[in-house]
Amino acid sequence: VGVEHTIELRSDNAAGVAPPILDAIVAAGAGSALAYGGDEWTARLGKRVADVFEHPDVAVFPVVSGTAANALGLSALCPPWGSVLCHESAHIVNSEGGATSLLAAGAVMRALSGEASKLTPESVHDALASTRWGDPHHSQPSVLSLTCPTDHGTIYTPDEIGALVAAIRPRGLRVHMDGARLANAIVAVGCSPAELTWRAGVDVLSLGATKNGALSTDAIVSFDPAVAAELVYRTKRAGHVASKMRFQSAQLDAYLTDGLWLRLAATANEAMAIIVAGLRELDVVLLEEPQANMAFVRVPPAAVARLEGAGLLFYAMGGGVVRFVTSFQTTTADAVEAVRRMRAALA
Amino acid sequence: VGVEHTIELRSDNAAGVAPPILDAIVAAGAGSALAYGGDEWTARLGKRVADVFEHPDVAVFPVVSGTAANALGLSALCPPWGSVLCHESAHIVNSEGGATSLLAAGAVMRALSGEASKLTPESVHDALASTRWGDPHHSQPSVLSLTCPTDHGTIYTPDEIGALVAAIRPRGLRVHMDGARLANAIVAVGCSPAELTWRAGVDVLSLGATKNGALSTDAIVSFDPAVAAELVYRTKRAGHVASKMRFQSAQLDAYLTDGLWLRLAATANEAMAIIVAGLRELDVVLLEEPQANMAFVRVPPAAVARLEGAGLLFYAMGGGVVRFVTSFQTTTADAVEAVRRMRAALA
Amino acid sequence: VGVEHTIELRSDNAAGVAPPILDAIVAAGAGSALAYGGDEWTARLGKRVADVFEHPDVAVFPVVSGTAANALGLSALCPPWGSVLCHESAHIVNSEGGATSLLAAGAVMRALSGEASKLTPESVHDALASTRWGDPHHSQPSVLSLTCPTDHGTIYTPDEIGALVAAIRPRGLRVHMDGARLANAIVAVGCSPAELTWRAGVDVLSLGATKNGALSTDAIVSFDPAVAAELVYRTKRAGHVASKMRFQSAQLDAYLTDGLWLRLAATANEAMAIIVAGLRELDVVLLEEPQANMAFVRVPPAAVARLEGAGLLFYAMGGGVVRFVTSFQTTTADAVEAVRRMRAALA
Amino acid sequence: VGVEHTIELRSDNAAGVAPPILDAIVAAGAGSALAYGGDEWTARLGKRVADVFEHPDVAVFPVVSGTAANALGLSALCPPWGSVLCHESAHIVNSEGGATSLLAAGAVMRALSGEASKLTPESVHDALASTRWGDPHHSQPSVLSLTCPTDHGTIYTPDEIGALVAAIRPRGLRVHMDGARLANAIVAVGCSPAELTWRAGVDVLSLGATKNGALSTDAIVSFDPAVAAELVYRTKRAGHVASKMRFQSAQLDAYLTDGLWLRLAATANEAMAIIVAGLRELDVVLLEEPQANMAFVRVPPAAVARLEGAGLLFYAMGGGVVRFVTSFQTTTADAVEAVRRMRAALA
Repeated sequence: VGVEHTIELRSDNAAGVAPPILDAIVAAGAGSALAYGGDEWTARLGKRVADVFEHPDVAVFPVVSGTAANALGLSALCPPWGSVLCHESAHIVNSEGGATSLLAAGAVMRALSGEASKLTPESVHDALASTRWGDPHHSQPSVLSLTCPTDHGTIYTPDEIGALVAAIRPRGLRVHMDGARLANAIVAVGCSPAELTWRAGVDVLSLGATKNGALSTDAIVSFDPAVAAELVYRTKRAGHVASKMRFQSAQLDAYLTDGLWLRLAATANEAMAIIVAGLRELDVVLLEEPQANMAFVRVPPAAVARLEGAGLLFYAMGGGVVRFVTSFQTTTADAVEAVRRMRAALA
Repeated sequence: VGVEHTIELRSDNAAGVAPPILDAIVAAGAGSALAYGGDEWTARLGKRVADVFEHPDVAVFPVVSGTAANALGLSALCPPWGSVLCHESAHIVNSEGGATSLLAAGAVMRALSGEASKLTPESVHDALASTRWGDPHHSQPSVLSLTCPTDHGTIYTPDEIGALVAAIRPRGLRVHMDGARLANAIVAVGCSPAELTWRAGVDVLSLGATKNGALSTDAIVSFDPAVAAELVYRTKRAGHVASKMRFQSAQLDAYLTDGLWLRLAATANEAMAIIVAGLRELDVVLLEEPQANMAFVRVPPAAVARLEGAGLLFYAMGGGVVRFVTSFQTTTADAVEAVRRMRAALA
Repeated sequence: VGVEHTIELRSDNAAGVAPPILDAIVAAGAGSALAYGGDEWTARLGKRVADVFEHPDVAVFPVVSGTAANALGLSALCPPWGSVLCHESAHIVNSEGGATSLLAAGAVMRALSGEASKLTPESVHDALASTRWGDPHHSQPSVLSLTCPTDHGTIYTPDEIGALVAAIRPRGLRVHMDGARLANAIVAVGCSPAELTWRAGVDVLSLGATKNGALSTDAIVSFDPAVAAELVYRTKRAGHVASKMRFQSAQLDAYLTDGLWLRLAATANEAMAIIVAGLRELDVVLLEEPQANMAFVRVPPAAVARLEGAGLLFYAMGGGVVRFVTSFQTTTADAVEAVRRMRAALA
Repeated sequence: VGVEHTIELRSDNAAGVAPPILDAIVAAGAGSALAYGGDEWTARLGKRVADVFEHPDVAVFPVVSGTAANALGLSALCPPWGSVLCHESAHIVNSEGGATSLLAAGAVMRALSGEASKLTPESVHDALASTRWGDPHHSQPSVLSLTCPTDHGTIYTPDEIGALVAAIRPRGLRVHMDGARLANAIVAVGCSPAELTWRAGVDVLSLGATKNGALSTDAIVSFDPAVAAELVYRTKRAGHVASKMRFQSAQLDAYLTDGLWLRLAATANEAMAIIVAGLRELDVVLLEEPQANMAFVRVPPAAVARLEGAGLLFYAMGGGVVRFVTSFQTTTADAVEAVRRMRAALA
């Protein structure tokens, strides 16, 4: 296989910065402004989020990572003696080094199984039914955390979220969404941001931006003013209030303006659709049905090295499983060429 | 007083971004790169820090705030049952919302007094002498934390640091430096970065960059490999490992290249020197001897409003005390004009 | 000085067990009973506490130490970003190894000065006035913690507590009392348990019993049902729910029955009164006015060894200061004899 | 069924106090003694533990509950970013309300499956093999925690422990044993205390006494002086250093003297053996092979009420599963009578 250039499919966080976001950063750098969010960009961001999410009482907290957004958001929802119900594939339980247990003073994760990397009302119901409520020997389920898209590229619809929320409401759990790739889900579902979040029952959202074109910021979006009042303190004392917050706010404001975030995500999703269509014609197994910008594929073990040799950058997960992720920078041409190389490598 | 433009003297973190740093960000955005520090900019930064600090085993961890740098660095130096000795004016005890007590699992601060906002060997000695060592009723002094420049704009010389380190060595305390404005201190003292830090006994440094021209990053600099090994985990689980770390590393690399950080700090210090020279001729009291880019001044209470009316932006601390801070963006013309307005307001 | 026997004045926690309490333990050991508080002794204790404190909604949690009572009680009153206002002589800040900062997820102590080892409305008012409320850089004062009797043997009257509570009410702080020696204070003041606690504004009380005749238990007494609901979980996950709780409950029930706790404390106070009367005739300085069962006395340095040689057991605090503490086991004869020996040693 | 008296089979922590232990408490109450472990009983206990466990450098820390012993012991073995490998049935993951995550600053549990409620070298090996070592996204396995007897009444032999320890040694994990019922295991296996603990590789032991005749104490036994040095502080700041520690030390000393603990456990085990022999003749399913003093049995659902009606006290776990536990107070006559009633109820 002759390789002219590598094609980046390792992760969407390997990408660069979307030009309108970089422009916004540069523009925010003119002059000086009050630190710690007392600036016009942060004020504007607050209004933007309220507008985009159609929620008047929303609050937004820029943070530097999805882990910070998840762990801080959960720490404001879950008491120290609580547990967070999540899918066993969730980033919060597998890939954040125990961040939530640290920042929520020893709260614990309770990982549940479920098809397509998604929780089901049944598994949630069973978890609640098997809990000894009010018995302090047992961590009390306090939050339902949903990842959308999941870490395996599948998506909850608003109706599916609604059904899960209905399952937990009798016990009063709060609802958190890890939306590290929320834009990709919104585009795939074709719904509004509100429909996939607070209208479906989400109280606090980790809003990803870094994987979809931002330089250095994600955000916590709280639909509950009481939670937001706590996050003012929780973010600061975890070191997550940047003094030059305006440069994060400017990124997020540009990201959410005129649908930029959705256009960037659509580019990534469309590139993945091309790749998935190509993969379906090859001798591989798609481990989950790819619904956003990510695919997990089982290939003959010997093929992994051939794919690497073909100039494709991706993650080999072990056991012949490979992960492909597209980003806002993955062009149609990249996707078509990637399929061509996959076909050759898997021939 | 006729005001054509405001002059920014509130804080150095109100400033924008130094052009070479912005250029470095833009350059780092071309192409894609591995996330979480597996990129060439982060590799280059490691070498740069080793070179600038003349220390082969140094490790550097970009973080989003000085609070993160302080609390994480201290958490790796201080056991949960330890105390951190610091001056009563220190940022870590007054202005970080208890971050260190959170991230160091309940470690506590022990604030000491001292002239010129600086610790003295005597006060440190007295604190150690009054400690019941080995008695678990008492938090065990474990770290000496020095702020240089202090939060009031004074500076420790390498000799002063050495004397403090000598005072704690018999008890084995580790040494942390809050260097949120380290460059301003280095320029003022006229020493090397090594002389003011590890050669004087500092184990872990919070290296400020945001207040001196960076966009969104400070850093923890560890001169102790065992501490660095912990920080790999501590930074991640506090949500302080950015996926697109290259954009922080590129900023820090540019900051430390060809003395940029020192030139930026020199500009700030020189502007402050002009202001201080002007203030000395007025009916005001300088609360500390300004040695870097910051002055605290007591003015007649009625003068505060006149200073504000003169288009000067600054912090009124209460009781007629005002704080002026210059930055890399404060020009000589700004400083001269600021003095002119101060003179008029205080006439 | 001829010494027939030593006289124990080191601490009231060096004493043994009051016979009625030991009897109660033995009685509780007959037969078996549900663990973790599901037993008749614990049920009876709840009623006893409600009766003794004249409060229908009180809840009581036996714990193994005063440190546990203080730190757990405070953890349920103080948010992680809060501070606890207390006197600089308080046990919680000096002698508990940072327990509250551990169990309250990084909450911090803010120690204030005040005559007679007591807080004053003025010092509390100043602390509140100097706080930047709502600014997350600053730990937010959230709890007022009073020690009664203080660690130096002085006592707050109900009126003094009321004045302090009035000072914090505009800011909504909660009120904690470290009552490690509460019975000694009640006896000295001559008021009811309710008057010195919840009627004066106390929300949560650390009720000492170990220093006054119990074998192995103190207790948290909560006058706020919402706090009690948290303590169900907080006590368990800190390992402070004993499986054989009935043996703690039986001690506390006996302690509070028929005024036993007050009689025991009266014995200690009366013995101290004899000693203090004797000390007033000697060449010593009483550092505080002893109001309960404890005296701090400055003696000529050479006298410390003579006091020790006279068979008196006490704590030498350094600098010629000695501490004498009486307990329920200190007889009138002990006190008279102690004075005789002190007179001889100080002659 | 005519019931003259109830038979206690709910839990061994429902029992009373073994007479020699009560005698020791009473004896320790004569006179006064230094608090916080500076007493002769605690000194004697240290020597007793060294003798019984045949280990010169052992350290012992009395604590008030097994949860305290487990969580504090683990907090000294596991870094905050670590995980504790344990069986999915372990008390530390199911029944301690997240205590270890609290006291170990956010460390997490990683529960593994395994036959007979026991870990296997294979499951441990797989857990280690699937870990991304050195990657801070992933909690790093740091401790292997074994429960012996398990929460389901099965037992690890020294050889089985050795095989598990061999599996973790290449990765340097430490070894914790939850020995809430250790005496029952030692008696059942017929080995020495050393063989089942440190000689098999255990670093820190939670030594149960409360379930086997003590009044109010369990203990942490550390075979590693470095861990013990930490526990001095960790126990205090969690509120687990009782001032009148001598009353705990006296209990533990009596417990370990002249084999009392083993005799008490033998009584419990023998009573259970009688019950198990009886159960084998009935139409029930033993869920695990009972090896100590505990049996889990599946009975026809309708039989649960009949067993309760027969004056048997036990836990109904749901789904027709019942748990029987014997204690040092369960006589042979109790066991024989219990079997008789079970036979009648299940007829």
